[in-house]
Amino acid sequence: MRDIYTDFRDLARRLDVDAVALVPGPNFTRLMGKSFHTNERPLVLVIPAEGAVAAVVPNLELGSWALLNFEGEVFDWRDQSGYSEAFAALAAHLPLSSVAVEGQVMRVFVHHALAAAYLGLRIVDGEKAISALRLCKTDAEIAALERAIGISEAALEDVLQSVHVGQTEKEVEGRLIQALFAHGAEGLAFGPIVAAGDNSARPHALARHDYKVQAGDAFLFDFGAMWGGLCADITRTVFVGDPSREAEDVYATVLAANEAGHAATRPGASAHDVDDAVISVLEASPFADRIRTKTGHGLGREVHEAPYIMRGNHEILTPRMVFTNEPGLYQIGNFGVRIEDDILVTEGGSRSLTTFSKDLRVVG
Amino acid sequence: MRDIYTDFRDLARRLDVDAVALVPGPNFTRLMGKSFHTNERPLVLVIPAEGAVAAVVPNLELGSWALLNFEGEVFDWRDQSGYSEAFAALAAHLPLSSVAVEGQVMRVFVHHALAAAYLGLRIVDGEKAISALRLCKTDAEIAALERAIGISEAALEDVLQSVHVGQTEKEVEGRLIQALFAHGAEGLAFGPIVAAGDNSARPHALARHDYKVQAGDAFLFDFGAMWGGLCADITRTVFVGDPSREAEDVYATVLAANEAGHAATRPGASAHDVDDAVISVLEASPFADRIRTKTGHGLGREVHEAPYIMRGNHEILTPRMVFTNEPGLYQIGNFGVRIEDDILVTEGGSRSLTTFSKDLRVVG
Repeated sequence: MRDIYTDFRDLARRLDVDAVALVPGPNFTRLMGKSFHTNERPLVLVIPAEGAVAAVVPNLELGSWALLNFEGEVFDWRDQSGYSEAFAALAAHLPLSSVAVEGQVMRVFVHHALAAAYLGLRIVDGEKAISALRLCKTDAEIAALERAIGISEAALEDVLQSVHVGQTEKEVEGRLIQALFAHGAEGLAFGPIVAAGDNSARPHALARHDYKVQAGDAFLFDFGAMWGGLCADITRTVFVGDPSREAEDVYATVLAANEAGHAATRPGASAHDVDDAVISVLEASPFADRIRTKTGHGLGREVHEAPYIMRGNHEILTPRMVFTNEPGLYQIGNFGVRIEDDILVTEGGSRSLTTFSKDLRVVG
Repeated sequence: MRDIYTDFRDLARRLDVDAVALVPGPNFTRLMGKSFHTNERPLVLVIPAEGAVAAVVPNLELGSWALLNFEGEVFDWRDQSGYSEAFAALAAHLPLSSVAVEGQVMRVFVHHALAAAYLGLRIVDGEKAISALRLCKTDAEIAALERAIGISEAALEDVLQSVHVGQTEKEVEGRLIQALFAHGAEGLAFGPIVAAGDNSARPHALARHDYKVQAGDAFLFDFGAMWGGLCADITRTVFVGDPSREAEDVYATVLAANEAGHAATRPGASAHDVDDAVISVLEASPFADRIRTKTGHGLGREVHEAPYIMRGNHEILTPRMVFTNEPGLYQIGNFGVRIEDDILVTEGGSRSLTTFSKDLRVVG
């Protein structure tokens, strides 16, 4: 009999562990159909290879927990008494000698709570296998992603029309965030990168209070709305006033690499193949010393997830995978250019979910 | 010789470990003066009790890392080759047999990377001791907190003036977020709780697309701006149209408990004392069966941090601590009321940093 836990039970057997333990986060949300606050209180859902599921839940979350229609045993705990007894009760109810956890999501205090309750427990980082269950997106997930991307594109257009010399990066960032929510975002996929001038050369720059946009700056926007639990991730780099001849050449090179990535994407190609197609364009240019990143990463309920699009990753692309195609060239201390689309692998090849123009754009 | 790492070196000795290992998060930001993106790539800063600091840093973050003026050895790694060699190089450079980590911040994959590089390493959850270094706020932190609170209050006033019957919780949430950024928020301290009717009885409710605000609803707003790295956290519960007599009584009870909390706060009192004063008021009311939470939690660079204001926590309050005073009464399936202020412990007693009126307010 299949139920919502079947994939996880099968996974536990494949990983040769007694159970999979999930904490609130993307896998939990996809499984249970609702997201849950993550905070300083441990909450764990245990899915054994054999037998009934069980959970440790903070007492004050029981009202929200009731919405999940969870049929397993629940061990709740109160702040005043702490959580070690609830974990001990879980261990008595559901003995385990090994468990796979989400290494990128579970924090060390939960790891320690499990280890303290289950003496000798083997805790395996099952992140890759667990999150692989999310690799191929459902129709509903693709629709939500398209909506998140549409909101992001509308917000970017608003902001680009209002950018002007003398604004600080922080001011522009604030406008972008307001525009995202005005267009219907339910959250931010991640803290936006709004980076002008030399800051555009830092792949994960933070917007500055003390830097005012200047004529001639490259201005890089990397951001995304969250909608329906799915994350958009788009980058466009524009120029404040006319770019230099060199900047034009850099832009054309990055755009050509981005287009090579689209062309290389089809079922049966590997993540390596796509990165190789993209990076080869950059390597053949006069700007090869400005390569600092791989092509991209999977995208879905997390803004960074599998498949990672890089040389050496021979994972085969299959329909319904979604990833970013985001080549860039970064000259530290001067400027950077990145152009990023979100690509869906289709039966026949690929389709860019991002439709915002990639023509070189001058603003301000 | 004191340097910025001295407190952490002293802490390592006190915890009887060879080093403290930090990952990006509140302690890292406070120490280094800059925040850092957290993502799927491990980044660890190791502060040994004796000797020089060292770090493992993703290669593509080196540009941002350079802004930290870090003087220790850096072991960088690229996505294509993975991070295990960088951790091994760290272990060869800086041998350790034990380390304290931030259990609430570090994720399991970093724990496993340390354990794999350092055979037999004893990894201690030092969260409480490490974060205790942030207990007493600096003048700059208090000023930033007041600004974050001021932004939050201005946004709430905007939203309360526009709330009307027929809006969904999600619509009101979107307006609140836009108002926060319009008033200068740099981020959200946490995902806002915008909960009407029965949802107001869930302490950590999520706003619904499919629930429209109705006349007679209690409407609870629990949210906060982030500014300068500090988190505001404020709750007000209003009524859409005139409340029932029972709702008025519940509101008056929660307000009396909130006021008892302010009155009980002074240096030398314990966290237990404050919670006891607050909960005693609720227990003495006809609504004692609706108590579901403790009084509050510390507030600063994290929205939930020490001191936790609850019975049994005999931690003594000292000037410059900041915590939330947020009594509530929750009748599952019907409605809840919470009133939350952010309190600074002062030399002479306490001062509420939150100044938004707590008079019962009817909106719509």
